Amino acid sequence: MRRFVVVGHRAITSGDFKLNDLCGSTGRLDVLLRSINSAFFLSHDLRRDVELYLILQGEPDPPKTIKLVGSELKYLNPDERSTGALIRNALLKRAYPHEQMSTPGIYISKRGFADVVQSLAKVSKILYLREDGESFNATPDSGEFTFVLGDDKDLFEEEEAIVLKHNPDIISLGPISYHSDHCIILVHNILDSVSPFK
Amino acid sequence: MRRFVVVGHRAITSGDFKLNDLCGSTGRLDVLLRSINSAFFLSHDLRRDVELYLILQGEPDPPKTIKLVGSELKYLNPDERSTGALIRNALLKRAYPHEQMSTPGIYISKRGFADVVQSLAKVSKILYLREDGESFNATPDSGEFTFVLGDDKDLFEEEEAIVLKHNPDIISLGPISYHSDHCIILVHNILDSVSPFK
Repeated sequence: MRRFVVVGHRAITSGDFKLNDLCGSTGRLDVLLRSINSAFFLSHDLRRDVELYLILQGEPDPPKTIKLVGSELKYLNPDERSTGALIRNALLKRAYPHEQMSTPGIYISKRGFADVVQSLAKVSKILYLREDGESFNATPDSGEFTFVLGDDKDLFEEEEAIVLKHNPDIISLGPISYHSDHCIILVHNILDSVSPFK
Repeated sequence: MRRFVVVGHRAITSGDFKLNDLCGSTGRLDVLLRSINSAFFLSHDLRRDVELYLILQGEPDPPKTIKLVGSELKYLNPDERSTGALIRNALLKRAYPHEQMSTPGIYISKRGFADVVQSLAKVSKILYLREDGESFNATPDSGEFTFVLGDDKDLFEEEEAIVLKHNPDIISLGPISYHSDHCIILVHNILDSVSPFK
């Protein structure tokens, strides 16, 4: 299982936004929507062995976590607008401390970053993507990974402190700084070369 | 200079489409829009040393070629909708055999695939992305590359014949088949590791 946690620092936490202005009116939810595409889409296939956690920390009701589960996903298309509609549907549901399904494979809750990272650290190795990290080289026995990354902003100091508590590997994907969704593509490709695709 | 040629097999060749239905009404222009994001965007920067050629082969007036030039681009944002608006602006212009600028860095013409590939083969090595290709490994002296790839469909037989005339390297990016825009991300990352970023 490959897991990704993407922090949407100011991503909107209500469904009150227009699909026609995903870039301007949603606290850069568009970055997270592109991360969904990267996490799950193969050519004419979906990656089933992936979970993606989007941590929404913007107004009006932070935090909320939207979890996407590859093995259960339905109705997901690669374009930003239709993915935005699925996420808006999730945000239109009332969020509780425990996860609730919105559409198949998409869950919403009031969980926050610390809670999500702590629970994932129990079942997987945490890898924190940071520009000054070590080069990431997977080996066939690399096991279960959770990759943690920011949106268009790096993790804030207090968020980084949460991650560092779990003894992560700090990794980098190249000599320059990439968009979050591009990082997910690169991680998948590195793991694809050593792990069978599921 | 890194160059990419993406064939939009049924991508619309007029500006008569709705930005609210990029996925359904444009012959999968959305695939090409995501390729634009992949070709040019870095975290808080644009790749200047890149050219992208989108070959539009759909109705009503095929072929048309839209060329994007990194060193000249303005007004480009990472989201699909605003990129779609820039491309629609280009398609609303009358297309001639020679390129005409639409907005800074975006050019439209009536050029077709064979013409574009032939002219690029004169100034660069052609690399053709195909699932059964050899693993792509760049070296520091790799020089000028043009990467040729399809949209959600592989190149048709007659298109492949055009490419093969130019003695391409046939390359693959991994053990499974990726979306076009994801391939561009992977190519960039491989080249970034050996070539200085411009």
